Amino acid sequence: MVFRMDITMPKKFVQLLVFNLTLTEIVLSGNVLIWPTDGSHWLNIKIILEELIQRNHNVTVLASSTALFINFNPDSPVNLEVIPVSYLKSNIESVIEHVIKLWLDHRPTPLTLWTFYKELGKFLDTSFRINIQICDGVLNNPKLMAKLQKGGFDVLVADPVTLCGDLLALKLGIPFVYTLRFSPASTVERHCGKIPAPASYVPAALSELTDQMTFGERVKNIISYSLQDYIFQSYWGEWNSYYSKVLGRPTTLCEIMGKAEIWLIRTYWDFEFPRPYLPNFEFVGGLHCKPAKPLPKEMEEFVQSSGEDGVVVFSLGSMVKNLTDERANLIASALAQIPQKVLWRYKGKKPATLGANTRLYDWIPQNDLLGHPKTKAFITHGGTNGIYEAIYHGIPMVGVPMFADQPDNIAHMKAKGAAVEVNINTMTSEDLLSALRTVINEPSYKENAMRLSKIHHDQPVKPLDRAVFWIEFVMRHKGAKHLRPAAHNLTWFQYHSLDVIGFLLACVATAIFLVTKCCLFSCRKFCKTGKKKKRE
Amino acid sequence: MVFRMDITMPKKFVQLLVFNLTLTEIVLSGNVLIWPTDGSHWLNIKIILEELIQRNHNVTVLASSTALFINFNPDSPVNLEVIPVSYLKSNIESVIEHVIKLWLDHRPTPLTLWTFYKELGKFLDTSFRINIQICDGVLNNPKLMAKLQKGGFDVLVADPVTLCGDLLALKLGIPFVYTLRFSPASTVERHCGKIPAPASYVPAALSELTDQMTFGERVKNIISYSLQDYIFQSYWGEWNSYYSKVLGRPTTLCEIMGKAEIWLIRTYWDFEFPRPYLPNFEFVGGLHCKPAKPLPKEMEEFVQSSGEDGVVVFSLGSMVKNLTDERANLIASALAQIPQKVLWRYKGKKPATLGANTRLYDWIPQNDLLGHPKTKAFITHGGTNGIYEAIYHGIPMVGVPMFADQPDNIAHMKAKGAAVEVNINTMTSEDLLSALRTVINEPSYKENAMRLSKIHHDQPVKPLDRAVFWIEFVMRHKGAKHLRPAAHNLTWFQYHSLDVIGFLLACVATAIFLVTKCCLFSCRKFCKTGKKKKRE
Repeated sequence: MVFRMDITMPKKFVQLLVFNLTLTEIVLSGNVLIWPTDGSHWLNIKIILEELIQRNHNVTVLASSTALFINFNPDSPVNLEVIPVSYLKSNIESVIEHVIKLWLDHRPTPLTLWTFYKELGKFLDTSFRINIQICDGVLNNPKLMAKLQKGGFDVLVADPVTLCGDLLALKLGIPFVYTLRFSPASTVERHCGKIPAPASYVPAALSELTDQMTFGERVKNIISYSLQDYIFQSYWGEWNSYYSKVLGRPTTLCEIMGKAEIWLIRTYWDFEFPRPYLPNFEFVGGLHCKPAKPLPKEMEEFVQSSGEDGVVVFSLGSMVKNLTDERANLIASALAQIPQKVLWRYKGKKPATLGANTRLYDWIPQNDLLGHPKTKAFITHGGTNGIYEAIYHGIPMVGVPMFADQPDNIAHMKAKGAAVEVNINTMTSEDLLSALRTVINEPSYKENAMRLSKIHHDQPVKPLDRAVFWIEFVMRHKGAKHLRPAAHNLTWFQYHSLDVIGFLLACVATAIFLVTKCCLFSCRKFCKTGKKKKRE
Repeated sequence: MVFRMDITMPKKFVQLLVFNLTLTEIVLSGNVLIWPTDGSHWLNIKIILEELIQRNHNVTVLASSTALFINFNPDSPVNLEVIPVSYLKSNIESVIEHVIKLWLDHRPTPLTLWTFYKELGKFLDTSFRINIQICDGVLNNPKLMAKLQKGGFDVLVADPVTLCGDLLALKLGIPFVYTLRFSPASTVERHCGKIPAPASYVPAALSELTDQMTFGERVKNIISYSLQDYIFQSYWGEWNSYYSKVLGRPTTLCEIMGKAEIWLIRTYWDFEFPRPYLPNFEFVGGLHCKPAKPLPKEMEEFVQSSGEDGVVVFSLGSMVKNLTDERANLIASALAQIPQKVLWRYKGKKPATLGANTRLYDWIPQNDLLGHPKTKAFITHGGTNGIYEAIYHGIPMVGVPMFADQPDNIAHMKAKGAAVEVNINTMTSEDLLSALRTVINEPSYKENAMRLSKIHHDQPVKPLDRAVFWIEFVMRHKGAKHLRPAAHNLTWFQYHSLDVIGFLLACVATAIFLVTKCCLFSCRKFCKTGKKKKRE
């Protein structure tokens, strides 16, 4: 017999009600509203959503009418609410292409940092206009708002890369939880979430630095933080106005984002460098990982035909579909020279130099391949999802990062000794070949990948269970205020105790001044008395 | 069938070995060495030790020959290694009395802060001499050291209030885990563990402040941090020499303490104010709490005789046995005036004013009483163990704090609305009576206590399981280096980026200097040319 009850019902009451049934036998059901971000971000939130459904919650997803990845089968239990927008799918695709090109052309190094961020600023303007359409599509849509208000939602789960989820939660009067990988230079986490990030050992996002920095790198890191802070704080100006307008009172984007009950961060200490964090931050990296399933028959035969040498899995992710002929040939000729069989996810034209050992696929069951005992290495663009699958199965990597967090992710894997990087812009066939031979033949790479895998598997609670636990916690308790640091109530100069330090310095200065004055006064008096005495 | 295997065996290997058995069916057994602190601290580590034994580990405890609390039945599975010391039990008892008196006479307020810490410094000298005897009793004891070296220990669990556990672990070449409540002003956690503590909202230990501070309180907090830092850093000088001598190389106490793999902190967010922490800090407060067992027959009858009014539980903890006649009478006369029945743990002379509703007991089953449905309030000295039992069962408190962390603990409970404080030095019968009536009759106290209780019970993993998980993790992986922040490799000025900030300021100053020089030079040249032209 299964009891179906409201999640908000107090546990004690539920226990009284069902007498001898344990809580695991009771289905606590609630209503969850999802505010996702499209693209590879969606793959991550989808896993959480599926788990929520598994646990008998009703899930409603808000997605724009031109979403690329967000769709469901007609028989899916998910309620999809479509947000009408006027931009086209092609607009989004062009933004993505623009961003990838920006990164490939201006990959931030100490010399190109400023140009990069100037260019990034332009992209932010476009992204702002697209995002505002999504916000307006809900918040200025009385019919949809009325429907949502009637939905009786207990919590909203938002990916803050698409803004306004927080604002919607406030309008609906429900708590919200964030799920994100990072914000540039962790500006949002630091300024709005109040997570401390000492610049001396916490590398700024997009800096490709590690926690072990030389003096020069620490200089670069502080500049990186400051520059990104400057750019994002100025970009926030428009959002501050929008948020104030919607709420009908002066506010800031950061103030509203700071109201997130829980921040689910898509990394863990197998990937992240140890750093300070707060009790309302939960590191749930790799929540999508699972054991490998058997491969399709044809693929399994190809993998088995590799014998002792094993196979290499190669994918540049879901966002990159094409390469120039030259680059594709360069890659293919490197792959042709290794004894391993290669499974390459590639939709472009078949490269002329493709070896007999390499097969192209439109799509590959990446997780199942990475979990196959024959797999020796993974050539990856360095998306967090793919990297976590490699960590989960203990597979060393060759990183070919392109944009967003990818260069950072590969920098992390390099620092942990589980990856070698090749630069997509400047690499030769020999570079890729040498990188592949290194990760396959030097045992330290496999050992380090296995070490990360062991760390990943040896957690008190699995990442997905932790993520869902905290979402359900917020539903049960209507928030998680006991985890919210008081730093949110302080101004920046109070937070850094600048007022107190100023006051104490003023006290010391006054004391020194008074003591000096007294000494001078006594001294003068003493001198005068001395002179008088001498005269007498 | 049960397999008994070495904990250090890799999981994969174990899995291969036992084929279809799941890991839960395999007993992973290891050797744990415990370096405890006597007194109420022992009660906490004892629970961890019992759980470790439950999980089939071999546990060895090191305790001085004059330990007050640390003892075992002859049939206990624990190996007790006795450290010979020349001081007497009475010496320890006198130190404890001295400390309690110090706190009662000089309870730190903004006005008595300096006197208090000066007096505390004297106590530290005595405690240093006692602690050094314990250290020497092991480290300069070749027979005991040889025995320990042969023990094949996988981990050492230390309460760092008694120093040298870390040093012993280093000498034995094994990783170590700390379990502690706090160090004064969190000096050890901040300086040696590298946990950040922004003085603007993280109250210094022993300050009795909360996370919501006025300007004046923030001034007091910063002074509190600085003073305690100063006192403890100077006190550490002697320890630095001792540690360097034992290791045969120049080192500091802090450097060695910083090598702790995991810091198990005896609080949680039901008690603690939300604050930044590090991935190798685990908050396991209340790990000793468990559901109430039935009371002894006579006690149950007395409790039941209270009817609708219920009972009040009263204990000043295991360290305070006696009160002055005057104070005992004052307390007893307040208790006599409430309609509740009172169970008072008190070994002193029966007070003349004792009411018919109050019974004295040499010892009470505190947890079982606090978990009894008739219990309305708990009068407590504010030890962490007792407070956690009250939180666990959702019982509001009247705090009568006396020393160490007790005033702080009660300040936490007051801030969370679950306690009222009375000052043991200045209270009248009316004060105690009014406090008791408030927590019993004002519903907010019970509601807040229940709220804390709900937070405590609603964790993804129970505190004791988390504590033991991380000890076993360190045993399995021979440490937890992936959780250790790189801050340990930085000097204090590098940590605060002072060198980088200095360098950047110097760059800016140079740039301003050069630009000014150029401007002046151009200006002069321009002026000269102008004058020349005018003359022409």
